[in-house]
Amino acid sequence: MTRKQENNEFEAIGFDADDTLWENETLFYNAQKIFNEVLGNYNDNLDQKLLKIEKQNIEYYGYGVKGFILSLIETAIKLSNKKVDNDTINTFLNLGKNMLSEPVKILPGVKSNLRMLSKNYKLILITKGDLLDQERKIESSGLSKYFTHIEIVSEKNKTTYTRILNKYKINPKKFLMVGNSLKSDILPVTEIGGKGIYIPYQLTWELEKVDYDPKSKGYVQLDNISLIRAWLEKT
Amino acid sequence: MTRKQENNEFEAIGFDADDTLWENETLFYNAQKIFNEVLGNYNDNLDQKLLKIEKQNIEYYGYGVKGFILSLIETAIKLSNKKVDNDTINTFLNLGKNMLSEPVKILPGVKSNLRMLSKNYKLILITKGDLLDQERKIESSGLSKYFTHIEIVSEKNKTTYTRILNKYKINPKKFLMVGNSLKSDILPVTEIGGKGIYIPYQLTWELEKVDYDPKSKGYVQLDNISLIRAWLEKT
Repeated sequence: MTRKQENNEFEAIGFDADDTLWENETLFYNAQKIFNEVLGNYNDNLDQKLLKIEKQNIEYYGYGVKGFILSLIETAIKLSNKKVDNDTINTFLNLGKNMLSEPVKILPGVKSNLRMLSKNYKLILITKGDLLDQERKIESSGLSKYFTHIEIVSEKNKTTYTRILNKYKINPKKFLMVGNSLKSDILPVTEIGGKGIYIPYQLTWELEKVDYDPKSKGYVQLDNISLIRAWLEKT
Repeated sequence: MTRKQENNEFEAIGFDADDTLWENETLFYNAQKIFNEVLGNYNDNLDQKLLKIEKQNIEYYGYGVKGFILSLIETAIKLSNKKVDNDTINTFLNLGKNMLSEPVKILPGVKSNLRMLSKNYKLILITKGDLLDQERKIESSGLSKYFTHIEIVSEKNKTTYTRILNKYKINPKKFLMVGNSLKSDILPVTEIGGKGIYIPYQLTWELEKVDYDPKSKGYVQLDNISLIRAWLEKT
């Protein structure tokens, strides 16, 4: 280790999981491609229609694969004027099961950087979605050993982060959060006084999109996880 | 308060939530009645067929309403030889949304007894199912103030209880768990050295059923939550 100095600004670093540590949105994107192929003859603007129904259903289903599949079925019935055949609905059910058993694909540089950072910082995994599916992904990623705490939550907002930081007695000003969603990972943290490192993924779900303000204080954008260490050293 | 002595045998009391603190299985029972009405012409033995598919799907969906509805749809397609109409599937989707927004019905005696017990014991809520739905029910029950800790888990087995007790530094021998499922609430706790109070609910999901052994050590059966205090006093 050639690291000469340790950044004392932060007591803990939080990491988002889906699309920050491993691929996730790709699975939804591929499922939506199949949805479009199967239902393309019914409507031109399937993605927007699906998104509208997903948004309405968040209050019932929360985030994750099971709610996504239920929304796919609902959208298909609606857009086809109740003419979806049972084979198509079976296709969606199978899509869901495949998504829920797909091996985790860890993103490049994640393992080595978590190992390195875990030597100097308390790392906290903070992820949202279906409990069982998130547990499965954490377990099969083999990354849990780098985290002091793991939190699976139903929503990531100011209340969530405040609750977690209180629980572990971490001063928000000494907390850094890394993630691919400005809306869920970065802005709620900067709003309670923390710092954020925004690492965009190649795909962003529409419901996670907000405008990026390069002049905003409290967070920086980096291209990948391997750049965090250098950023910490010069901060 | 006329209570004269405190039971020092226990450091903490765990409570299951669904069908221990509030009604839950009733919702599934009513949904299954509708499922039977709608699909009764396809098959005689719907409940057993549904149960088989629910059991197969647990590894994908875990416990809770969303997985239940996905299993209802899958069973309906299978038993009807792919002839379920879209209205029927819509009925199941709406059933799910109703179950996920149904006001919580707290069981008799729960509030006063939790209040009383929370004065002398650390109470821990340990519940399994969909994260968002469990959070909603805990929030709307108004009961969270009586609990020192709240744990929403994907499965309740020996590993789960060991992890929770380690986390809060509670000796299993000084832990008492109260719940309506021998399989999920009582037996895993007695197997790691804790004690259990089994309070059956009027309905038990088939997948939670195990044989009750009245001679078994480590747990007692009580009729309702109001009897816990007297049991603690004479233990």
